[in-house]
Amino acid sequence: MTAVDVPSGLPARVGTPGPGDPRLARLSLNQRTTAKWSLREAVDGCVAAGLGSIGVWREPLAEAGLAEAVAMIRDAGLRVSSLCRGGFFTAAEPAARCAAHADNVAALDEAAALGCPTLVLVPGGLPEGDRDIRGARERVAEAVAALVEPARERGVRLGIEPMHPIFAADRGVISTLAQALDIAEQHPPDVVGVVVDTFHVWWEPGVLGQIARAGERITSYQVCEWITPLPADSLLSRGMMGDGHIDFTSLTRAVAATGYSGDVEVEIFNADVWAAPGADVLATLARRYVELVQPHL
Amino acid sequence: MTAVDVPSGLPARVGTPGPGDPRLARLSLNQRTTAKWSLREAVDGCVAAGLGSIGVWREPLAEAGLAEAVAMIRDAGLRVSSLCRGGFFTAAEPAARCAAHADNVAALDEAAALGCPTLVLVPGGLPEGDRDIRGARERVAEAVAALVEPARERGVRLGIEPMHPIFAADRGVISTLAQALDIAEQHPPDVVGVVVDTFHVWWEPGVLGQIARAGERITSYQVCEWITPLPADSLLSRGMMGDGHIDFTSLTRAVAATGYSGDVEVEIFNADVWAAPGADVLATLARRYVELVQPHL
Repeated sequence: MTAVDVPSGLPARVGTPGPGDPRLARLSLNQRTTAKWSLREAVDGCVAAGLGSIGVWREPLAEAGLAEAVAMIRDAGLRVSSLCRGGFFTAAEPAARCAAHADNVAALDEAAALGCPTLVLVPGGLPEGDRDIRGARERVAEAVAALVEPARERGVRLGIEPMHPIFAADRGVISTLAQALDIAEQHPPDVVGVVVDTFHVWWEPGVLGQIARAGERITSYQVCEWITPLPADSLLSRGMMGDGHIDFTSLTRAVAATGYSGDVEVEIFNADVWAAPGADVLATLARRYVELVQPHL
Repeated sequence: MTAVDVPSGLPARVGTPGPGDPRLARLSLNQRTTAKWSLREAVDGCVAAGLGSIGVWREPLAEAGLAEAVAMIRDAGLRVSSLCRGGFFTAAEPAARCAAHADNVAALDEAAALGCPTLVLVPGGLPEGDRDIRGARERVAEAVAALVEPARERGVRLGIEPMHPIFAADRGVISTLAQALDIAEQHPPDVVGVVVDTFHVWWEPGVLGQIARAGERITSYQVCEWITPLPADSLLSRGMMGDGHIDFTSLTRAVAATGYSGDVEVEIFNADVWAAPGADVLATLARRYVELVQPHL
């Protein structure tokens, strides 16, 4: 993985795109890619790099203050592509489930204030000592159903994010796009959608067919890379596009073929990326995006 | 993960079972669980611990010599539950594919000499620089088809092993039991089967239904655990049954319901297990097996 742009075996086909470049209009920085930046710094970084959008996380949002953040992002001329994150639905105890529901409703309020199209839902893992993954999956479906009315009232779509099975035990029991769609399709498409993140779904048998099946339910398209050897901390195992094994061409074309016209978020959890200067990371991801993703949108 | 038996939250419900205990009759030590042992040491270890069977790896087999190994295992009164491993089918160049085929035929010869029911096939990962996982999966299906006649002639079943998606890039592009069955079902069940390894399939949506679908095609049932946090080396991330998140009850019952009457291999790749004395590892795995797996067979 290279945080600065020394492409691994890829020719540098494009110069560094910058402000005013129309190819960056749909590119969004997910805040976790530059985890040490405040929201202010991330907004300024997006503007300086020429990105059109930002994916906001709730923790730095709370630090900035909701009203201040809304004004800051609006004044910068950015869109908010998503709010990360709601979910964590798998607790078994009623009190914990009620608390999760209330927290998700609060997140929907924030998403509505930000004018963003979707709240990303991370399903949650197995409760401590619980080996019943089927039960946990059923609780996710129930919790999503309970959020349909609050989401509709606020005009925010719920975005169920299937997660790579590496996270099935501790983070996300919904393991495939097919499984996420099985839940989403129980509800109207304008209220419940799915998040397609290349890191999570690239390996899924039949994934291109599942993307087609998702159709208008795709609420967010996120790109990052599967790299090997896998970094030691599996939570920080994502790489920069181009440094690994994912075929962004076929996945991006499949998403585009559904008519998806939203932003494309780059979300990279990686210690090396986090250690690099944020502006360098943005320059690299903009270049890789223009080279590997944007031509296929 | 505990290599010796300090169960994590589990009551020690059984004493250490030993030689003559009928509950151990179908328990098999996969050699990689005690990676530092020679074949001689592993055979002796199985006998001392009261196991009925051993899963043999080709590298220590070659060190021992095939004829010597056959005699050694026969004299010890053990069965061979499987030979690990064939496969690695995903090279794109014809010469490499021919070499892989020839190596698999050699492995079938060894499996026939050992009298073992199945050659375990690890599909192989993406070739260097290749992002076409669909193409790699097609090559696996073609390579399996090419081995059907050699396997039939030798009376050895091919066992396609679906592998956890954590290994999709670098080890096994067949990611689900459903996908393995799609390939196996193109051939007679007495020649092409599937390996059910709890580590690889526990997260799979609908896995119990896929096990039922597999039916008589199950050529090997392997047990080990998914533990968190995932150890730093993903290749060594498997745990001792009882230390993690897998529901051995439902998986074992589903396998038993197919009529599977073969051995149950314990295959644990884990640096801590490998560092522990082999006899201690066998005592622990025998106890955990009797507690968590054997009652459901």
